[in-house]
Amino acid sequence: MTGGGRRGRRPGAPDTRAAILAVARERFAAAGFAAVSVRSVAAEAGVDPALVHHYFGSKRDLFLAALEMPVDPREVLAPVIAAGPEGAGERILATILGVWDDDELRLPLLALARGLTDPSGHLLQDGFLPVVIGPVLAELGVDQTERRLPLVISQIIGVLVLRYLARLEPLASMPAEEVVAAVGPTLQRYLTGPLP
Amino acid sequence: MTGGGRRGRRPGAPDTRAAILAVARERFAAAGFAAVSVRSVAAEAGVDPALVHHYFGSKRDLFLAALEMPVDPREVLAPVIAAGPEGAGERILATILGVWDDDELRLPLLALARGLTDPSGHLLQDGFLPVVIGPVLAELGVDQTERRLPLVISQIIGVLVLRYLARLEPLASMPAEEVVAAVGPTLQRYLTGPLP
Repeated sequence: MTGGGRRGRRPGAPDTRAAILAVARERFAAAGFAAVSVRSVAAEAGVDPALVHHYFGSKRDLFLAALEMPVDPREVLAPVIAAGPEGAGERILATILGVWDDDELRLPLLALARGLTDPSGHLLQDGFLPVVIGPVLAELGVDQTERRLPLVISQIIGVLVLRYLARLEPLASMPAEEVVAAVGPTLQRYLTGPLP
Repeated sequence: MTGGGRRGRRPGAPDTRAAILAVARERFAAAGFAAVSVRSVAAEAGVDPALVHHYFGSKRDLFLAALEMPVDPREVLAPVIAAGPEGAGERILATILGVWDDDELRLPLLALARGLTDPSGHLLQDGFLPVVIGPVLAELGVDQTERRLPLVISQIIGVLVLRYLARLEPLASMPAEEVVAAVGPTLQRYLTGPLP
């Protein structure tokens, strides 16, 4: 309305928050989590770093907000971790299917999955996995220097693609517990079983 | 050049072949393999059905051409079938990775995978699986009334997405034989092992 003024200096303005998020999303996608500082996001958005923390909390919180995750994986996966590595394959998959089976969450989750697997970005390798999934496996005592993590993710992504994106039958309509019973042992082997 | 004339009546014209393919692609994607006849494709392309057969062979061949598969899965998978169900999980994956590891085939294969998993289409459920993959499993003696096929596909798609699309390390750079050693047992269980 004022015309030509610099955007984003008004702390309470909704477009300030959106501007920070847009910068964060672009920077995290281009460079991964570790290489991006809250300070650099704030500078590019034309705001004070304190305002970024005020809106979003920690850098990790900013990352999750930039991913537009409709649920907080820390909360959702906490019971999985608490029960220990035995049966974790089944519990992880049951938890993920529980979230994805929610009609209201599916579209944002599909958008998230597309963003994560975008080959031009760094969100999966240098963001989502070390920031979101890595800590879960660490708390389960899974050795992350091995190839266990990508194997786990490969089976989960395949189920998500067929069940929710391609909607392949019978996988699309199977009760979640049947999918868990069939696929869970695979995840358990990738997590804690013998690998070549 | 002649202006306003009906397209596609000249047998030798390259655009006749392209027009048939375009119609076939659209019809197969919209309705699946079984519901589309060569006759209906020919009619919509404004050519004689004999010309479709002349250019493409059988309806199955037309389907593979419409998918723009850069290799013929019948040829590629024939040795997998010939050696029987034991170890087929490893051999199927080794064969698929061998094709996808070829730099020249990767882009057309990624385009194919995108088309197959397009949720608005029928190419996977009613085309690729029954026409291309089903016969392979049948020759291996795998019971297709069960859920084995989608489970097999889920693990294969997950590996392809991470290794070739998202290029997640270490999966993107692992020698194919190490991927086969780690993931092959999963496929073998889905093919012939006990399922709940």
